[in-house]
Amino acid sequence: MSDQIAFSLDAEFAAELDRADPLRRFRNEFVISDPDLIYLDGNSLGRMPRATAERTRTLVAHEWGVGLVRSWGNGWFDAPAAIGAKIARLIGARPDEVVVADSTSVNLFKLAIAALCARPNRRTIVTDEFNFPSDLYVLQGAATLLGQGHHIEMARSPDTVHMPNEVITKCIDSDTALVSLTHVAFKSGYLYDMQSITAAAQDAGALVLWDLSHSVGAVPLELKRDNVDLAVGCSYKYVNGGPGAPAFIYVRRDLQTELRNPISGWMGQQAPFNFELHYQPQSDIRRFLSGTPPMISTAAVEAGADLLLEAGMEPLREKSLLQTEYLIYLFDRKLAPLGFTLGSPRAGSQRGSHVSIRHPDGLRIDKAMIHAMNVVPDFRAPDNIRLGITPLYTTFREIHTAITRIERVVERRLYEQFSDDAPTVT
Amino acid sequence: MSDQIAFSLDAEFAAELDRADPLRRFRNEFVISDPDLIYLDGNSLGRMPRATAERTRTLVAHEWGVGLVRSWGNGWFDAPAAIGAKIARLIGARPDEVVVADSTSVNLFKLAIAALCARPNRRTIVTDEFNFPSDLYVLQGAATLLGQGHHIEMARSPDTVHMPNEVITKCIDSDTALVSLTHVAFKSGYLYDMQSITAAAQDAGALVLWDLSHSVGAVPLELKRDNVDLAVGCSYKYVNGGPGAPAFIYVRRDLQTELRNPISGWMGQQAPFNFELHYQPQSDIRRFLSGTPPMISTAAVEAGADLLLEAGMEPLREKSLLQTEYLIYLFDRKLAPLGFTLGSPRAGSQRGSHVSIRHPDGLRIDKAMIHAMNVVPDFRAPDNIRLGITPLYTTFREIHTAITRIERVVERRLYEQFSDDAPTVT
Repeated sequence: MSDQIAFSLDAEFAAELDRADPLRRFRNEFVISDPDLIYLDGNSLGRMPRATAERTRTLVAHEWGVGLVRSWGNGWFDAPAAIGAKIARLIGARPDEVVVADSTSVNLFKLAIAALCARPNRRTIVTDEFNFPSDLYVLQGAATLLGQGHHIEMARSPDTVHMPNEVITKCIDSDTALVSLTHVAFKSGYLYDMQSITAAAQDAGALVLWDLSHSVGAVPLELKRDNVDLAVGCSYKYVNGGPGAPAFIYVRRDLQTELRNPISGWMGQQAPFNFELHYQPQSDIRRFLSGTPPMISTAAVEAGADLLLEAGMEPLREKSLLQTEYLIYLFDRKLAPLGFTLGSPRAGSQRGSHVSIRHPDGLRIDKAMIHAMNVVPDFRAPDNIRLGITPLYTTFREIHTAITRIERVVERRLYEQFSDDAPTVT
Repeated sequence: MSDQIAFSLDAEFAAELDRADPLRRFRNEFVISDPDLIYLDGNSLGRMPRATAERTRTLVAHEWGVGLVRSWGNGWFDAPAAIGAKIARLIGARPDEVVVADSTSVNLFKLAIAALCARPNRRTIVTDEFNFPSDLYVLQGAATLLGQGHHIEMARSPDTVHMPNEVITKCIDSDTALVSLTHVAFKSGYLYDMQSITAAAQDAGALVLWDLSHSVGAVPLELKRDNVDLAVGCSYKYVNGGPGAPAFIYVRRDLQTELRNPISGWMGQQAPFNFELHYQPQSDIRRFLSGTPPMISTAAVEAGADLLLEAGMEPLREKSLLQTEYLIYLFDRKLAPLGFTLGSPRAGSQRGSHVSIRHPDGLRIDKAMIHAMNVVPDFRAPDNIRLGITPLYTTFREIHTAITRIERVVERRLYEQFSDDAPTVT
């Protein structure tokens, strides 16, 4: 990107980039109630698509309020697979390989247990220290539950930003049942080499389970091309599905009948309205469903997925890379001199759609940005301020202004009025 | 009830009962878009409280649309425990013994596994054939997963309506790790003796896990008095929380630190925003949370719970019993002569808040009621039509009219135009 464009520091240059942005119209598809607010936390909770307010209103007032229980037969019952098929297109999977269900943690648990049970003579789960702590907790719980010597092998990086392939692959051996990693690291934004790691794990006879929570809607994915076994992901970040929106679960078609969902609920049952007393799972991806889906939150996912499909993941990636390059360009000139270091990869090919910047007073700077400067990034201990780029709605001008505001907070030491007490919620 | 009131067959009598109903104002708290529709399926999906439409709109448009990620710190993060504390009041539990989370199936899985792991030298799960098939599937899955001889002992009733205590208790012995039952049977509406069965199981050293899905909001519950170990329940039936509304999970206070949530996600972690790499569960009920809650669906639960608290479970039970008695009075005189048999207990003390009526052409009659008569009951194979009474909004006049319409469908054989193909969704 930066080979093609000579960046410039002035605000007018950012405005030019916005005018030239082929995706600029998509910002109008989102509710932007405060034009001064610079929201750089779409990697935690995406903005609300305009269509979602209407979809939710219709679901509540009409489908529930008027249709009542009859609405289960008029679309609700099929929603987990129908919305899943849309997410499948976002991740390069087949439409019958994805369903929307439960939370990312619950889905990770289901697939981790299913994978471990499918490799009964192996005991090791390979993961790494860049993984979401939540994923590590779930994997620890799965290992404890099976409890026959199951344990976690934690790959550790030589630095805090990159996780080279070989750090992972050297942990994989003939005892590895499962390799479970997050495709874009939540802290540094490092983008893993899905194809190579998947192949290395499979060569060793292990199954691979990717968490796509920071990838889906942020970077193009090719699960079919990469022959990925299993994946989960969240829909409230770059998919803009709403707070705590139900997650998704991917199982490659040929593995669907081989693997067993440990949470064998009625939504995964063949002919659930026959009320048979014995579990007989569906023969397709629906066997990974468990209980009744929370329909209001489930339906809200669709409008977000539709916008991503309409924009296309390749153009979105192109814009995202240009925006993170531009952000790093400004960072180097404006923030590095103020004591910041870059917490994300410089190589675009290794970077997802957020940039972490690090500062010893990062937590207080983050609070000052939110409470005094009307910029919302987020903070990840010990010193990372994450600046999330959502190319559907983030503008170049916002990036320019955000860097200017961060500069001001540090230059004028405005952050000193904020405490460094650990956040309880972000 | 029927000792005190001499019922009468005429419609004016029903209108008199409505006028005398001390809870009649609560019907106005619900959206009733079609006054002719007689909705007798609140036991499957409750009607929408008026307050819920506004609560949902505020959450979507304001808390998400404007507040964005900041809303997690402004109530969202605390919602599972805060709404759980309200449900605790509905079930006679302590406020710190309940959280809202996940689906009933996922919660049942968590507690079943936790209970089985807490009784490592026992192998039997006692349940019965009246339980929700979905619960049986989950218990089967839990037994298979632990797989060290774990198995299910299925109590079978001498009839299709009642499940006498001794049928259950004679299945409980020194190998019983867990007794898992549904407190009001989904098909017959039989109301179990929670206190006696719980005591019998505990005397044998087992843990008890009640599914309250058909009880909460329908009958008074006293989990503290009855010393119940564990419970789960759904909030989309009599709690009127919305389609697929998140379920709840109850763990008696003294068991909370003893039991381990197998799905050890970040919402159950102590200080989750410290992002530590090892799971360290909360020391209270929150350790039974797993992933991020679906907030729109979660928030929708509250208005339904509030209405039940305002009405009070004792007055609601009094009305429910009067209404089911009245329904059975009409049934005996109008429907029994047409070939129906009663599928629910005649003794009010053994009956929840729905009445099942059985007919060899039940499925076709159910379809005719929905599609030709504007009455919505539901059907449970092989021949049960369930008539759900929700005392918050069901009127005596509706019960009278529904019986009249069923009578007409059968007398005029209007159901013959409908097929007896099994329903795919109800």
